[in-house]
Amino acid sequence: MNLKIDTNEQQNSVLNNINKLTQRKILRTQCPDAKGLISKITNICYKHQLNIIQNSEFVDHRSGHFFMRTELEGIFNDEIFLADLGSSLPEKSIYELKSGIKQKIVILVTKEAHCLGDLLMKQAYGDLDVEICAVIGNHALLQPLVERFNIPFYLISHEGLTREAHDLAMRTKISEFSPDYVVLAKYMRVLTPEFVAFFDKKIINIHHSFLPAFIGAKPYHQAYERGVKIIGATAHFVNNNLDEGPIIMQDVIHVDHTYTAETMMKAGRDVEKNVLSRALEKVIAERVFVQDNHTIIL
Amino acid sequence: MNLKIDTNEQQNSVLNNINKLTQRKILRTQCPDAKGLISKITNICYKHQLNIIQNSEFVDHRSGHFFMRTELEGIFNDEIFLADLGSSLPEKSIYELKSGIKQKIVILVTKEAHCLGDLLMKQAYGDLDVEICAVIGNHALLQPLVERFNIPFYLISHEGLTREAHDLAMRTKISEFSPDYVVLAKYMRVLTPEFVAFFDKKIINIHHSFLPAFIGAKPYHQAYERGVKIIGATAHFVNNNLDEGPIIMQDVIHVDHTYTAETMMKAGRDVEKNVLSRALEKVIAERVFVQDNHTIIL
Amino acid sequence: MNLKIDTNEQQNSVLNNINKLTQRKILRTQCPDAKGLISKITNICYKHQLNIIQNSEFVDHRSGHFFMRTELEGIFNDEIFLADLGSSLPEKSIYELKSGIKQKIVILVTKEAHCLGDLLMKQAYGDLDVEICAVIGNHALLQPLVERFNIPFYLISHEGLTREAHDLAMRTKISEFSPDYVVLAKYMRVLTPEFVAFFDKKIINIHHSFLPAFIGAKPYHQAYERGVKIIGATAHFVNNNLDEGPIIMQDVIHVDHTYTAETMMKAGRDVEKNVLSRALEKVIAERVFVQDNHTIIL
Amino acid sequence: MNLKIDTNEQQNSVLNNINKLTQRKILRTQCPDAKGLISKITNICYKHQLNIIQNSEFVDHRSGHFFMRTELEGIFNDEIFLADLGSSLPEKSIYELKSGIKQKIVILVTKEAHCLGDLLMKQAYGDLDVEICAVIGNHALLQPLVERFNIPFYLISHEGLTREAHDLAMRTKISEFSPDYVVLAKYMRVLTPEFVAFFDKKIINIHHSFLPAFIGAKPYHQAYERGVKIIGATAHFVNNNLDEGPIIMQDVIHVDHTYTAETMMKAGRDVEKNVLSRALEKVIAERVFVQDNHTIIL
Repeated sequence: MNLKIDTNEQQNSVLNNINKLTQRKILRTQCPDAKGLISKITNICYKHQLNIIQNSEFVDHRSGHFFMRTELEGIFNDEIFLADLGSSLPEKSIYELKSGIKQKIVILVTKEAHCLGDLLMKQAYGDLDVEICAVIGNHALLQPLVERFNIPFYLISHEGLTREAHDLAMRTKISEFSPDYVVLAKYMRVLTPEFVAFFDKKIINIHHSFLPAFIGAKPYHQAYERGVKIIGATAHFVNNNLDEGPIIMQDVIHVDHTYTAETMMKAGRDVEKNVLSRALEKVIAERVFVQDNHTIIL
Repeated sequence: MNLKIDTNEQQNSVLNNINKLTQRKILRTQCPDAKGLISKITNICYKHQLNIIQNSEFVDHRSGHFFMRTELEGIFNDEIFLADLGSSLPEKSIYELKSGIKQKIVILVTKEAHCLGDLLMKQAYGDLDVEICAVIGNHALLQPLVERFNIPFYLISHEGLTREAHDLAMRTKISEFSPDYVVLAKYMRVLTPEFVAFFDKKIINIHHSFLPAFIGAKPYHQAYERGVKIIGATAHFVNNNLDEGPIIMQDVIHVDHTYTAETMMKAGRDVEKNVLSRALEKVIAERVFVQDNHTIIL
Repeated sequence: MNLKIDTNEQQNSVLNNINKLTQRKILRTQCPDAKGLISKITNICYKHQLNIIQNSEFVDHRSGHFFMRTELEGIFNDEIFLADLGSSLPEKSIYELKSGIKQKIVILVTKEAHCLGDLLMKQAYGDLDVEICAVIGNHALLQPLVERFNIPFYLISHEGLTREAHDLAMRTKISEFSPDYVVLAKYMRVLTPEFVAFFDKKIINIHHSFLPAFIGAKPYHQAYERGVKIIGATAHFVNNNLDEGPIIMQDVIHVDHTYTAETMMKAGRDVEKNVLSRALEKVIAERVFVQDNHTIIL
Repeated sequence: MNLKIDTNEQQNSVLNNINKLTQRKILRTQCPDAKGLISKITNICYKHQLNIIQNSEFVDHRSGHFFMRTELEGIFNDEIFLADLGSSLPEKSIYELKSGIKQKIVILVTKEAHCLGDLLMKQAYGDLDVEICAVIGNHALLQPLVERFNIPFYLISHEGLTREAHDLAMRTKISEFSPDYVVLAKYMRVLTPEFVAFFDKKIINIHHSFLPAFIGAKPYHQAYERGVKIIGATAHFVNNNLDEGPIIMQDVIHVDHTYTAETMMKAGRDVEKNVLSRALEKVIAERVFVQDNHTIIL
């Protein structure tokens, strides 16, 4: 009987250890399309005794690429698993195993509070599962807001600096935190190609129009001048063509003749912050793939 | 007692005659803004014993203009009423008394059936209070559909004609019906300035994008290439700048990476027809005013 | 050289035969969740040399069920393929191989034209890939509309019949066409349990409210009385609890205090027809699965 | 020349005094409908040399009532102006002249931060023109958030108190601030009739469903159980029937089978906060009229 208890305890202990070792990870696969890819990948998962919690895949006929996002649960041996995958997938495949470790972001701002405030609130109250390492502004206006949420704020003024010098200072400060993503929460400056290249596919911007309409400065004033009946916002990855990077999310609201450029701006702020935070949520959940100038969201 | 009956009958007869004379009309006023305009106009209505059923007004601070739409009920003496109004309103005022007589439209089409079909259905079943005088196509494809609804179809092919000659033929045919509005229900040709000038502010077009994005040809293909996450449609008055006339109505739907240009086109058709018929409904209800390149919808 | 030509011809002939034999089919799998299901199913596809064109799957943790929709291309041997599947899947699995043969529907109507008209238009112009076998009305009002589209209309009046007798007559007529689905396009009668059981999970209804609000009669009047700021429509499978079957699709539009029950009805008609046709499109594309009182749309 | 300068100075001084005396006020009129009301009211404005900046009116045929909101600019003698109005309007008219003085609100909360945080952010950064006198919670959880925005937080726990005793304590504390409105920002307790009567038509609640669907507790769980494809939120005035007061604003978002009750809750939070803040904005702009169980928003 003692023995039996011992055995049970032993078993429990083994189970506990298994539970401790059990992890959830996300496999992201992006590769040239080929026959049998789902079968090959899921077989390898099965062989490694990794249970598929959720799986989504897509074949982009435009680019001839295959995309798959697989939530796995089990005991991982990353090295062997990825080696097995590598030998099964076509050349030029990209495959990553992402642990569920909280992703890190740095937020850049200028003077507008609404997008920043929404991210701070959501992060503080559990609706955005991310670590905000720092907020960096080229103005000091939002420093008190950030500090209320116990997050470090850095002022890097652009005054008296060339764009290159300012961007370099920004880039240096951002790099200290090795963030997974840089979020432009109404950061109202155009970035240098060096900056964009340095954080390639890692910079997410919110533009206050439904792109490709009203690219560039003062989109609400452009919208008012044109007399449109909808206004909107676009979250996108930044590339070197202004407001032309891969779009992640867009939304609009209806306006009418009673709106001025100012009341459009005010109404638009809710759209901007909603679109940015939803886009960021998809990105940090490892759901967003970039192919050429498009996004696939699984 | 006989007398009493007689009197009653006389009174009834008078009341009946009054009821017969009683009409509903819509007063549209568009003029430079000035103090006391609502007071002046409603006083004149009151003086003429016209009851205000519904009233809407707007001051456009951009242009400094005043707009008012007044649904009136009573016995109208149009000439005296309008003369009274004219002496009270500022110079350069536009004021019209619109009887509720059913407005007449001519519809132009090419090959696509959905917007046309929606207008035909709505007109046939009481959801669009308009007389469709004729449908004119530069292709014959939609003739059977139109004729099923007992509406005359005219084929005016553009084959072998210059744009000017074709437009002139179209204009001549349209003019036979003296329509209040010309509705371009996916009429896929650019109009000559002469055509546009001839039906100034009377041509309503549906463009298959959320303008000002994707002006011109193949907007869904442009949308697909750009990788947008919304597609839409815009109903607007036609002026001489392609897809740049005053916007009446716009709407969008969400799309994702699974859409091709073709499935965007298909999904977009419902948006197009909804936007066009809602815009037309506002126009024929005398609710739409044009000021510069904008619309005010009261 | 002749020989070579012959060989080529032979090869071409073989290729042509292969192309002729190559088909697209959709595999629908619905079963208790288990480990390795995706892997097992895709392996069998791979083994049968069936190429996966598109695949979607979902695990419903509420019911513990697994759902998968797989578009396959290749040369099918249905019997062996399904037997292979059957031996790999858990007990109580449902799996069907659907050929792309055009599905057949019968539409039931009463007096309202808009949903019917939208389906007729879409079917006639290629936006709804379905065969409309017949339209059956309990009133004659819509007969001319249906016949304009060269589709047979049957009048089965409910006058003087018990509900049971009328439903039986309807059911008998519908059964003549062996439809895949019965579409209630504003058919304003409550069905008997016998009728519902006979066409189990095959009856699609459009209800003119955002369910579960405003169940039953006159939902727009209920909406007007309640003073709501949105109105909507719900497409759902019919079960024996009025307006409580599994929901397929819902949408709403905004209304304000200027709306009456009548103008709500008018505005609502566009929502109703859009929601019904989009729901039907998903159903006939074999994308809709029913589990308990819910739908999974892949 | 000296004289001229003096005269100019005098004139400037007079103009300055006039400018100082010039105010903007909002006239709200709600009365039984009658002929000539717009004319009568605008005449009185004209006679008092008050310029109409913006005017909206509505006749509710359901109740036979007339509603008008008039933004006026000029030098006000409130007493005489209102007396003049009173003698012109029908019996049982309600008419108020609202100065643009910032309205005062008290916010009640329980544990959820999102609606509160949005109001705090908007008030702090100029998007909500209101004075937040205090936030009162029946839990202490949100105290730090409130205090970060330098607004007093009061904890009035319901523990160990009857509902009546707790409501009385809340009411007493609220009354200290004489607020124009009491905003329930996810205050998760049912109010006593005494409380509701005390702040009649002054309590604004946000309910996390599209009413009248999912009244009462756990609406997202109800929504999940029902398998709806939309979720939403409703801002309404509170009366003594749970979730049945006059609706101010509603909105929805689309959901699908991948949502759980928890992810519905998370996605719904953005809708809730948007709907509440937009409703509050309309209310404090004096745009919302209540008639029976409906709102008219001018």
